Amino acid sequence: MPKQIDHEKRRKQIAEATWRVILERGMEGASARNIAKEAGLSLGALRHYFSTQDELLVFAMKLVQEKVRARINNIAIKDLPPKETVLHILLEIVPTNEETIREMEVWFAFTVYAKHKKDMFDANHDGIYSGMQNLIAYLDECSLLKQNADKDIEAERLYALIDGLALHAMLDPVRVNKDRIKRAIMQHVESICTEKIRETEERNP
Amino acid sequence: MPKQIDHEKRRKQIAEATWRVILERGMEGASARNIAKEAGLSLGALRHYFSTQDELLVFAMKLVQEKVRARINNIAIKDLPPKETVLHILLEIVPTNEETIREMEVWFAFTVYAKHKKDMFDANHDGIYSGMQNLIAYLDECSLLKQNADKDIEAERLYALIDGLALHAMLDPVRVNKDRIKRAIMQHVESICTEKIRETEERNP
Repeated sequence: MPKQIDHEKRRKQIAEATWRVILERGMEGASARNIAKEAGLSLGALRHYFSTQDELLVFAMKLVQEKVRARINNIAIKDLPPKETVLHILLEIVPTNEETIREMEVWFAFTVYAKHKKDMFDANHDGIYSGMQNLIAYLDECSLLKQNADKDIEAERLYALIDGLALHAMLDPVRVNKDRIKRAIMQHVESICTEKIRETEERNP
Repeated sequence: MPKQIDHEKRRKQIAEATWRVILERGMEGASARNIAKEAGLSLGALRHYFSTQDELLVFAMKLVQEKVRARINNIAIKDLPPKETVLHILLEIVPTNEETIREMEVWFAFTVYAKHKKDMFDANHDGIYSGMQNLIAYLDECSLLKQNADKDIEAERLYALIDGLALHAMLDPVRVNKDRIKRAIMQHVESICTEKIRETEERNP
């Protein structure tokens, strides 16, 4: 294997070891020593791949973002009807299975941690808010959004709903399960979209 | 001052010192040593008031809950029109000033921390979800809720909106300011309530 690729692969393995340590011990347990042990490396070898603790943490978090982005791109290229596309993307952002709930848990732990580390990593701007603005604009372009809607506030409301559901899925996965998340998101999207004249269409085909 | 009251007052002072330490250093900095120093006590004196670190943390968090509950009770006794009462209570839960944003920050840090401490403190059930169920039921009793609403999902959706806004107010207080939170909440409450004009039209077509 070329050396460059091997280096990047090893960095990803260390990032995944970091996630496991954070999940088990919280950010307060995510020391270089614990991460090296989990990755099966010496402390010196770890330093070869990441010269500082913060560099490692930022890399591990960017990898979570990339995974979410890849899942969203997979939906976008599916060419579903507009409202279906929006629903599927929203359902991809809110964690609904064990793997994505764990990702979210790592993400929240890191976000709270990063509050105390100025200039470390801008967890506020994780791209989800601008994503919500794009979805609202997309619904509007497709003439699906209610005509009197305040698009600015609708994006804020959708963003709050999505992150609130994500938070609750993490804290209380038994109640806030996949089915319940789906119903809440569908109910929300329906409420901001124009009411279909489906009944009329069905009566007068 | 009677000894019992003095004891309780001192415990509250220690809890407030704990909040300050968490805000400045995060949960990973909330050691007994740091908290004792912030409270101006010896480690031995601190142990007199709280025998374990977890006992102190749980007490400090319950005090945050009590402060929120007291603010909500103050609104409930004001005897405003139903929809106004609901709006005011929701605006009281989402932090909109420096003091309440700091409370929320401590609360989130603690919630993430408590995920790794089984049976420590049930941060999932902080009373906000059942509060949302009550508000939806109250709007329904006052015939303000849309008649075809799924009350169960509406409570979940309102809960997600409120906690999502709270999270964003903490992470990005410049964008998610008081005015913006108010507009999002008002827009949401209006969207789940009956439209008065339409009601009249339906009655007198």
